[in-house]
Amino acid sequence: MSTAAKPTQRARVRRLPKRARYDWDSIRAILDAAFLCHVGYVIDGQPFVTPTCYWRYDKQVLLHGSFASRMLKTLAEGIDVCVTVSIVDGLVLARSGFHHSINYRSAMLFGRARSLDAEQEQREAMEACVERFYPGRWQTLRPVTRKELKATTVLALDIDEASAKVRTGPPIDDEADYALPIWAGVVPIESVQRELERDPRLAAGVKAPEHLRDLSHLGVSAR
Amino acid sequence: MSTAAKPTQRARVRRLPKRARYDWDSIRAILDAAFLCHVGYVIDGQPFVTPTCYWRYDKQVLLHGSFASRMLKTLAEGIDVCVTVSIVDGLVLARSGFHHSINYRSAMLFGRARSLDAEQEQREAMEACVERFYPGRWQTLRPVTRKELKATTVLALDIDEASAKVRTGPPIDDEADYALPIWAGVVPIESVQRELERDPRLAAGVKAPEHLRDLSHLGVSAR
Repeated sequence: MSTAAKPTQRARVRRLPKRARYDWDSIRAILDAAFLCHVGYVIDGQPFVTPTCYWRYDKQVLLHGSFASRMLKTLAEGIDVCVTVSIVDGLVLARSGFHHSINYRSAMLFGRARSLDAEQEQREAMEACVERFYPGRWQTLRPVTRKELKATTVLALDIDEASAKVRTGPPIDDEADYALPIWAGVVPIESVQRELERDPRLAAGVKAPEHLRDLSHLGVSAR
Repeated sequence: MSTAAKPTQRARVRRLPKRARYDWDSIRAILDAAFLCHVGYVIDGQPFVTPTCYWRYDKQVLLHGSFASRMLKTLAEGIDVCVTVSIVDGLVLARSGFHHSINYRSAMLFGRARSLDAEQEQREAMEACVERFYPGRWQTLRPVTRKELKATTVLALDIDEASAKVRTGPPIDDEADYALPIWAGVVPIESVQRELERDPRLAAGVKAPEHLRDLSHLGVSAR
């Protein structure tokens, strides 16, 4: 794991190295504040970028989906993968077009994935996924079946290398521009949950569960 | 442009083809509802996925950044690129772990980029970018300089092929599970803007501009 002070060649941030971080705590904090990643992989020289949910276990990122997924099949071959997680925190408005920016946190992970093939391992992974999203929900659900496990692929990506990049704070304008009567600052942006939409076929008398009240662990704020 | 009814081999959605759309209107609608994309490209066989802002012009996606950006330099060579835009609309909770899902809209674009090298073309692109984000702002800004244009790379990606994938609505559970007393439904998720943060060095008496009131064209709702 090369997320200590010195990055590898592949993970080194080229642009604006002042924004770069390579320590595991910074990378973990970003992984633990979101649930969607973008997976980059190559088939016959052509790059593909697929959005998918993930969860973290120790220094692994786990992905899952249908057994029939071409992405998962391809990744399971052990090819080089890039997984990127990015969170937009705000729009940064400067006094010149040039200095406009975005406040963000992003992590770029490099590694190779392996498929979890043992049924027990798969079952635990599926539980971990549901529990990551909705703590306490797994035990309330109709239990997973062997057929469902067979239809599911779970991949674990060992994070061999990683980098994070973070921008925070107000715009950085040219010194002479600060005097101009132009509004500058930040529009903070947040992901929020809205009013729950009950399944139209919800059984009578079923109340919304406690685990939907606070989704801030997914980077989703309450209204 | 192969976004008509019949997709190309590369753009064809493999998993859950019922969720796939290939018509330009569907793809454009997604591109015009967000501002962040994830760009996939390959260097020496290694995939990279870089988050960056984009804007659309006709059937092109435009990207920009520093002249020194490795990503932009690499893309400008005319290599195959995949640009993915994804918007999360909600968390979908089912009665079994297996049927949990996400409501989303995503577009995957394939093409090759070229650099806009003429100064006038660059200037217009930069204006178009600011105007896409903040209609009416460009003319209020300190004008762009030649030095800034020289320091900027703008790339235009011709969208040769594209596909969109959309999931909406409640969970789809196994028929027998609908009777179970388990909460199921959707947690809608939205991106919202919070209270503006004025630059601490804002000139006296400068009011927040009108163009920050409604950012819904960026997929960002008002509070």
